[in-house]
Amino acid sequence: MKRQFAIILTLILVVILAGFTVRRTTTDDVIYPEGYRKWTHVKSALLSADHPNVKYRGFNHIYANEKAIIGYETGTFPDGSIIVFDVIEAKFEKDHTDEAKRNHVDVMVKDSQKFATTGGWNFGQFEADKTPRNITDAVKAKCSSCHASQGDHVFSEFRQ
Amino acid sequence: MKRQFAIILTLILVVILAGFTVRRTTTDDVIYPEGYRKWTHVKSALLSADHPNVKYRGFNHIYANEKAIIGYETGTFPDGSIIVFDVIEAKFEKDHTDEAKRNHVDVMVKDSQKFATTGGWNFGQFEADKTPRNITDAVKAKCSSCHASQGDHVFSEFRQ
Repeated sequence: MKRQFAIILTLILVVILAGFTVRRTTTDDVIYPEGYRKWTHVKSALLSADHPNVKYRGFNHIYANEKAIIGYETGTFPDGSIIVFDVIEAKFEKDHTDEAKRNHVDVMVKDSQKFATTGGWNFGQFEADKTPRNITDAVKAKCSSCHASQGDHVFSEFRQ
Repeated sequence: MKRQFAIILTLILVVILAGFTVRRTTTDDVIYPEGYRKWTHVKSALLSADHPNVKYRGFNHIYANEKAIIGYETGTFPDGSIIVFDVIEAKFEKDHTDEAKRNHVDVMVKDSQKFATTGGWNFGQFEADKTPRNITDAVKAKCSSCHASQGDHVFSEFRQ
């Protein structure tokens, strides 16, 4: 009887923990774009050591998955397009600048049905160690309203 | 008769020109790496507007084909590895730097048998419009002797 009780208690705990996990990452959350470093490099820029946007100082590299490349080439990004904005801190030397460690990663994912209220795109942000940053709906709305000024909400162009 | 003569003369000219073309690009010459912009981006650096290496000022992006990525990951580059050094001129602004037009493209191709005397690698250089630069054997030897200081003749590492 004691053993049966222990089994039932364990099962209850498993169900509760599973519930927590499901709530922590819903299907609407942007997941970390594993393998993006082997996706296509769209373009780059460098923000100087005194740029006011502190968290973006250094190299800003943009990567796109195959679907997003179709978007860059046609002007319309199909569902499943993912664009990664990779912020790599810089080692500023006298006459050149090298890459240092990653600062963070911004991600845009296209799903025209699911994210219809934000132009078909969802936004995510990850620490260098892949931990997702807590992006509130208010922040996402801010991302979206700024991106809305662009063709299919994308600022960058694929540099040939 | 006059017409036949013109045809024969044209044919002779075509054969002569074809001969020139064959001689201009031998199988040992590095060919332009079509499609490299969709290969993996290895890493980047930026040379400042006052860098002494004038032709390399701006963004220096490195791209690698699939075989070369195996090389970066294992330390030994298989035959068929191609590494592209893409020099993109920079638009230096007050607090950031953007990409401008391409300056030129350097290419390294691995064939351990064919290029055994230069460490298994051959070197090529192309203008922004893809025209090959005339790289003499003396210049290639210089490329090779400098690259020989590195593991399998490659300076860069794949930035994760």
